[in-house]
Amino acid sequence: MGTAFEYYHTNQGVFLEGLKDLLRIPSISTLPEHRKDIRRAADFLASELTGMGMQQVQLIEGKEGQNPLVYAEWMGAPGKPTVLLYGHYDVQPPDPLDEWKSPPFEPDVRSENIYARGAVDDKGQVYLLVKAVEGFLKGYGKLPINIKFLVEGEEEVGGEHIEAYVKGRPALIKCDAAVICDTEMFAPELPTITTGLRGLVYTELEARGAEHDLHSGMYGGAAPNPMHALAQIIMGLKGADQKIRIPGFYKRVTKPSKAELAAWKRLPFNEKKFMKGEMGATALVGEKGPTVLERLWSRPTLEVHGIRGGFTGEGAKTVIPAAATAKISMRLVPEMEPKEVIKQYTSYVKKLTPKGIATKVRVISSAPASVVSTENRFIEAAAEAMQQVFKKKTVFMRSGGSIPIAGLLHDELGVPVVMMGFGLPDDNLHAPNEKFHLPNFYRGIEAMGRYFELLGQ
Amino acid sequence: MGTAFEYYHTNQGVFLEGLKDLLRIPSISTLPEHRKDIRRAADFLASELTGMGMQQVQLIEGKEGQNPLVYAEWMGAPGKPTVLLYGHYDVQPPDPLDEWKSPPFEPDVRSENIYARGAVDDKGQVYLLVKAVEGFLKGYGKLPINIKFLVEGEEEVGGEHIEAYVKGRPALIKCDAAVICDTEMFAPELPTITTGLRGLVYTELEARGAEHDLHSGMYGGAAPNPMHALAQIIMGLKGADQKIRIPGFYKRVTKPSKAELAAWKRLPFNEKKFMKGEMGATALVGEKGPTVLERLWSRPTLEVHGIRGGFTGEGAKTVIPAAATAKISMRLVPEMEPKEVIKQYTSYVKKLTPKGIATKVRVISSAPASVVSTENRFIEAAAEAMQQVFKKKTVFMRSGGSIPIAGLLHDELGVPVVMMGFGLPDDNLHAPNEKFHLPNFYRGIEAMGRYFELLGQ
Repeated sequence: MGTAFEYYHTNQGVFLEGLKDLLRIPSISTLPEHRKDIRRAADFLASELTGMGMQQVQLIEGKEGQNPLVYAEWMGAPGKPTVLLYGHYDVQPPDPLDEWKSPPFEPDVRSENIYARGAVDDKGQVYLLVKAVEGFLKGYGKLPINIKFLVEGEEEVGGEHIEAYVKGRPALIKCDAAVICDTEMFAPELPTITTGLRGLVYTELEARGAEHDLHSGMYGGAAPNPMHALAQIIMGLKGADQKIRIPGFYKRVTKPSKAELAAWKRLPFNEKKFMKGEMGATALVGEKGPTVLERLWSRPTLEVHGIRGGFTGEGAKTVIPAAATAKISMRLVPEMEPKEVIKQYTSYVKKLTPKGIATKVRVISSAPASVVSTENRFIEAAAEAMQQVFKKKTVFMRSGGSIPIAGLLHDELGVPVVMMGFGLPDDNLHAPNEKFHLPNFYRGIEAMGRYFELLGQ
Repeated sequence: MGTAFEYYHTNQGVFLEGLKDLLRIPSISTLPEHRKDIRRAADFLASELTGMGMQQVQLIEGKEGQNPLVYAEWMGAPGKPTVLLYGHYDVQPPDPLDEWKSPPFEPDVRSENIYARGAVDDKGQVYLLVKAVEGFLKGYGKLPINIKFLVEGEEEVGGEHIEAYVKGRPALIKCDAAVICDTEMFAPELPTITTGLRGLVYTELEARGAEHDLHSGMYGGAAPNPMHALAQIIMGLKGADQKIRIPGFYKRVTKPSKAELAAWKRLPFNEKKFMKGEMGATALVGEKGPTVLERLWSRPTLEVHGIRGGFTGEGAKTVIPAAATAKISMRLVPEMEPKEVIKQYTSYVKKLTPKGIATKVRVISSAPASVVSTENRFIEAAAEAMQQVFKKKTVFMRSGGSIPIAGLLHDELGVPVVMMGFGLPDDNLHAPNEKFHLPNFYRGIEAMGRYFELLGQ
């Protein structure tokens, strides 16, 4: 027996091969045809956890059609804190497929990065949690603290199962703190803890005109066109000035504290690099007034993700479609209430709906924003552990994304939630050519290991 | 030997089986994967034309990748007029497939109608031309006039091949008049000749934002979203009041003559029946001022047919797409010049394009509107022939659709163009459950036969 860190260093190649195996499983939770792959990914993790000596390893089943939670624990450190480690094994769909340089489910290592759907979001980060624990169990024989794993398979589809499960407050997941490993660092080499997330309301807005598709020659000039109705509603929801026009939408939005704003100003943020290097865009848009980071972290947004309906194939089809559906989501900031936003949105859509068109709103998922406190030993130890591994002072940031489980674990279990993440801003989350920077995979393992040690002292 | 009309009456069942065979061929010209079916449809017609005794039967090939024209002639009536019969054997794509009550390429007869893609547009009408001629050749031994067939396979994709061919003014298609059988009757039982068609400019408008898809959490609030840009441009092109905002767009639009407007007012048009019965809509939209028929026949329009890009699958994907493409077409009325309209449209799209977005317009097809004269023996005989068969006075109408070949044959061959058509307003042209009313198939054959006789007297 040596130390966990010796184990980490001698097993880097093995860890990489294991990660590749996990990434090869197309566990896409938004597509029902991948239900078997979802289970394969859960089984893969359960089998690794069992193999390294975790106990109570089990798949926690939900309702019919829900994806299992993977649970495991090691409780051999009485008197020491118990930390719940969270991640998710499901991934986003890979489309548009033709923009991938290597196939999304055939992991490919190119210049220190591993490319695959789920590389950073979140399989790479789940797997670093697993390996960090394995280092102690297999390299040293025991852990300095008690550990519980709770890994879900529905993060990309709203996480209904874990929400219901956590709300039941089962004894199995009792803990002193929860660690979420599903976020990113503010910049390469800059250890980062995320302290706030935006919420999300994701909807489908269907517009129906005539009963059936109509010929645009025969009926154009008299027929209501759902595509135009959607354009009109979308422009009514968010103007060209990027202001959201839904009455009451901004009423609960508060400004971050002066201290937080000052800390954000100190972050090494280069607007031009963000725009050109990271996004490949020619301009940044958004509300007038707030800075870019304020817009991303502390202002709500509304975005259209796609419109289904009509003719989109090669060539020309002169159809006025009977119906069209837009995917529209809103990001929420702290204090905004999803239920209230849904009501405001739905009733304003109704008001914006033009003559001859019937609209219907379907809410696919919703979660409030969350802000976590930075003043407790679990966050302090996390900042210290990351600082020791990365050799730089850990910064605190918010994120524009949404991790509903953060608020849920905090509210239901009443414990501090620590968001340590090792993704990079250019990791192409949810986009083609998603990647994970391999040095961060290995440093993530070490930082987690160091974190367990600090908490065990 | 008897008469053509005896032949028509005794062969109704055979004609129906032949029509079904033609309808079974999925000759969709907009989809490259159906290239073989295109050729099968052309071969099918050539083989029928040969079998009934037409001469010079041939497939006229165009450039690489273009669909053949089917040509045939019977010139055994010296001193009598020569009439060129036009139709098309290609069809629109059948999507959305799930709205068909019977599969689009398995013709199904239900209560006097035959349902299939292409039933009325235009295979049923091409086939009635073929059978009208066959009646004379096989039932009577000869035709009362000279006949030429010119049937194309690219009507639904812009008709490049026939355009180039006709512009070459080959001796083969010299004639005294052209008959187009690809239009509809104003109402059931009401014999109709179409005297005007709208033109068409069909475009693809691509909007590009960032270089790659972006996560709407991480970038929402700063990233340009091509879906919103398209909504903004679409609303800029045509306002909620249905007025097209492109500068100069209406400048050449003229009002129909007082006589024409008066004739339209006399047509048996029921706005409520048109809206509810035919379209299944709850309101008619369009410019304030002109009547519905005026809007459909004598006013230009702009319609969006579909938007490609982003995420449109099941569930939720929080993507800000890098690019999105809208299919947008404009219907033109007489005097409007497609080239000028394309220029106006393209430069206005550029002006409407918001910051951070690059747009590109691709013109897929364009054709001017056309109005034909009603004062010549070929139209007069057509009106008389239809009146004799349908036992009602033939009416003259315009159509909101576009048949570019009408203007082309008129301008290049310098002959009258006669648009006799037998479709019905509820035939679901370009839509699911396209049909052809079988009594009109049979009456169409007889009306054509009677037309040939009248011209031969």
